[in-house]
Amino acid sequence: MSDFTKKTIAKKSEDIAAWYNDIVLRAELADYSAVKGSMIIRPYGYAIWEYTQKTLDPWFKEDGVENAYFPLLIPYELIEKEKEHLEGFSPELAVVTHAGGKKLTSNYVVRPTSETIMYRTFAEWIHSYRDLPMKINQWCNVVRWEKRTYPFLRTSEFLWQEGHTVHTTELEAIGMALKALEWYKRFYEEYFAISVYAGIKSKRETFAGAKTTYAIEMVIPDGKALQAATSHNLSDNFANVFDISFLDEQGKKQHPFQTSWGLSTRSIGGLVLVHGDDNGLVMPPKVAPVQAVIVVIGAKEEAAQTKLQTYAMEIHKQLIAHGIRTKIDTDFSHSLGYRINEWEMRGVPVRIEIGSKEIDKDSITCVRRDNFEKSQTSSETISEHVSEILTTMQADLLTKSEKNKRELTVEATSYDEFKKIMNSKRSFIRVPWCENAVCEEKVKKETKATSRVLELDRIKKTESTTCVFCGKKASRKWLFAQAY
Amino acid sequence: MSDFTKKTIAKKSEDIAAWYNDIVLRAELADYSAVKGSMIIRPYGYAIWEYTQKTLDPWFKEDGVENAYFPLLIPYELIEKEKEHLEGFSPELAVVTHAGGKKLTSNYVVRPTSETIMYRTFAEWIHSYRDLPMKINQWCNVVRWEKRTYPFLRTSEFLWQEGHTVHTTELEAIGMALKALEWYKRFYEEYFAISVYAGIKSKRETFAGAKTTYAIEMVIPDGKALQAATSHNLSDNFANVFDISFLDEQGKKQHPFQTSWGLSTRSIGGLVLVHGDDNGLVMPPKVAPVQAVIVVIGAKEEAAQTKLQTYAMEIHKQLIAHGIRTKIDTDFSHSLGYRINEWEMRGVPVRIEIGSKEIDKDSITCVRRDNFEKSQTSSETISEHVSEILTTMQADLLTKSEKNKRELTVEATSYDEFKKIMNSKRSFIRVPWCENAVCEEKVKKETKATSRVLELDRIKKTESTTCVFCGKKASRKWLFAQAY
Repeated sequence: MSDFTKKTIAKKSEDIAAWYNDIVLRAELADYSAVKGSMIIRPYGYAIWEYTQKTLDPWFKEDGVENAYFPLLIPYELIEKEKEHLEGFSPELAVVTHAGGKKLTSNYVVRPTSETIMYRTFAEWIHSYRDLPMKINQWCNVVRWEKRTYPFLRTSEFLWQEGHTVHTTELEAIGMALKALEWYKRFYEEYFAISVYAGIKSKRETFAGAKTTYAIEMVIPDGKALQAATSHNLSDNFANVFDISFLDEQGKKQHPFQTSWGLSTRSIGGLVLVHGDDNGLVMPPKVAPVQAVIVVIGAKEEAAQTKLQTYAMEIHKQLIAHGIRTKIDTDFSHSLGYRINEWEMRGVPVRIEIGSKEIDKDSITCVRRDNFEKSQTSSETISEHVSEILTTMQADLLTKSEKNKRELTVEATSYDEFKKIMNSKRSFIRVPWCENAVCEEKVKKETKATSRVLELDRIKKTESTTCVFCGKKASRKWLFAQAY
Repeated sequence: MSDFTKKTIAKKSEDIAAWYNDIVLRAELADYSAVKGSMIIRPYGYAIWEYTQKTLDPWFKEDGVENAYFPLLIPYELIEKEKEHLEGFSPELAVVTHAGGKKLTSNYVVRPTSETIMYRTFAEWIHSYRDLPMKINQWCNVVRWEKRTYPFLRTSEFLWQEGHTVHTTELEAIGMALKALEWYKRFYEEYFAISVYAGIKSKRETFAGAKTTYAIEMVIPDGKALQAATSHNLSDNFANVFDISFLDEQGKKQHPFQTSWGLSTRSIGGLVLVHGDDNGLVMPPKVAPVQAVIVVIGAKEEAAQTKLQTYAMEIHKQLIAHGIRTKIDTDFSHSLGYRINEWEMRGVPVRIEIGSKEIDKDSITCVRRDNFEKSQTSSETISEHVSEILTTMQADLLTKSEKNKRELTVEATSYDEFKKIMNSKRSFIRVPWCENAVCEEKVKKETKATSRVLELDRIKKTESTTCVFCGKKASRKWLFAQAY
């Protein structure tokens, strides 16, 4: 355990970047490693990833997606095959040049994503329309050599799932890409209690090799955007390059249409940034590794102490039986204040304090992590009471996140106004844009903002207005923000 | 789907190696990849790995083991630190020399195992006896560049779990190493229905850097041995090298004692080899991705066909409701014989055949995969009947495996006899051995056999006899066999 008394942590409101690093390390979500830009995911952080897997995996499987595992190392010739794809990933590749004590005659790259290694094989597996749709997913690690790294948010190695599907028609592929996007949105809202934007990426922000990229964007309290998941309509680009084909019902050879979609451990960084406060993490109950902690307040006499711990263990048993992930803290070697700080740092949703006073009155104090609200209950009603707090807190966190998203999304009618916003209180800014990459480049250079998404309900070209950046014709409003 | 009519598969009894490769590919457990020595684990094979994870992971967690994730890439300087460890793995390392478009100033190896990258960090995490025991596990991929590879059994990349624990005393560490060994033994027996040997490895076969290696050895029907899991007492070797220390209760600085233990996707290869037959895989019911398949026999008239499929779907619903993983096969584009071959190839424990005749008499035929035993039941009793078959078959497979192990384990009283056995019907051979590596080297060269384990119940030095290889004093009998 870290010694939290050693150093005060930065304040979120004052320096969110410093605060973020402090929290991630001191709540023991992650640690730095001996590998440049790679982190260690510690058990408390990894548990959140396990909940993510346990939630998403059954959704995938219900839809007929099957898990598989493809090699980590990709022959260089394979990743070269799709030109745009190679160009997109080339600066970030880690290359294996020696193995088994010898210099290799041809190099391997450590997978930055698995399209190329998978699709070479898909070409061998797919023959007939009867083989389609084919839906494969893998939970794995990928490596992208990043220059500047932050724990979870951008690391040289990260964990993710990558879904890859093959369909007879492009319409079906688009449907699949949107379904994956919907899974991600639902996951963030229902489990992480984070309201997000879902939409289409601009050409400039599209995945290397895709026709269309759909994305989930998270609104961080500092007004910046975190791309939190992507889903791609690959059209028949890779199918052409890797010669994937099938015989249709009429016996005619056709190229199929593909999708790929992924969500990574980056999500955990978003969780920290959105919900945390100056006291540390705030864990949404549904994904909290520990949902309730019973802090036993020490008694001086042995008899009283025995009574206390027996009582606490009884409460613990009740909560566990009720399906609430509960820990009991009897660490009397530290002060009560220290112990409370510790559990707040870790963002445990409900803290239950039990001392001799509580037993005498059979009145137990519960403290809710997000708003520090105190409530009293008896040993008989403790399970229902804690359950209720967990449910309410989960809902309240989402409501708060929705409010935050709403407040941090503004509209601008001129580029001057846009720049003023980016220079003061950064936000998501919704503006009419001509959709030309030239504007995007200029805006990025001058304000650090880039187009994030065109929201799904704004795809239809309805407006007839002018681009706030160049004055040319614009028919849709896009969301811009500075990206993490 | 592969076309099973294209090529007949090799016979297990005639050429087990060719048979193994045929089965693995054609039952779609795995496929070859574009990466030398690496395979693709296909959904049907990966599902077995998922059952392995779902079984072992809760056992680990109940014991206080926590999952985490450490970096894939290990700085070369770190792996160099423990000399024996480096020497053990050096010939098999894959090395990253370039990343982010540049030649690296110092290289990384792709983890062959994670002792070195983890223990550097353990030194930072551990301060006091209160931090111990510390128990960390990770499910991940590792790379060992092998010269000769076989799907699952020996591949350049494989999936595994690696548990790493730290203890205040060596006794506790030994207890932990043995507990892990017991988990593996139980898993193989209860889930894979494979009777195994558990014991201690000779010095020559000990893990690079360990004091003692415990192992699970599987007896393959060809008389060869498959090392199916290992568990190491690392003593304080790594703790000394990586300077891991803790203050004991008296405030004195001490080095802790460590263990590591792992089970990999190699286990799936063992499953295939032990239970499969000339018709394909035989899946033990507990880990079978599909436990029962309903093969609907086509009818010529639409009315009869409708009746058939309605009836089949009703049976399907019942079995699913009963918790039996069931598929329904209505692929009328292939012959019944082809379909039966297909499900036999995949080793599905129970095949249920439903045709018009069956409906008329309400008498359903069930065929057990391992012994092709047929039985009849009615639609009312189908779930109980199939459950019973699954339970019986699981038990029978273990009994058969026990018998196979017993029959393929012999004793030899002279080296001549030993050689005769290895030259005819290969077996596990239990012999008194002086425990000197010189004998082991000689025996390996002359017979291909190596010492596999000293069984746990034979550790005590009780016998006073002579080594069958050199005639010197020997006090314990070891198991020798040719390893996979």
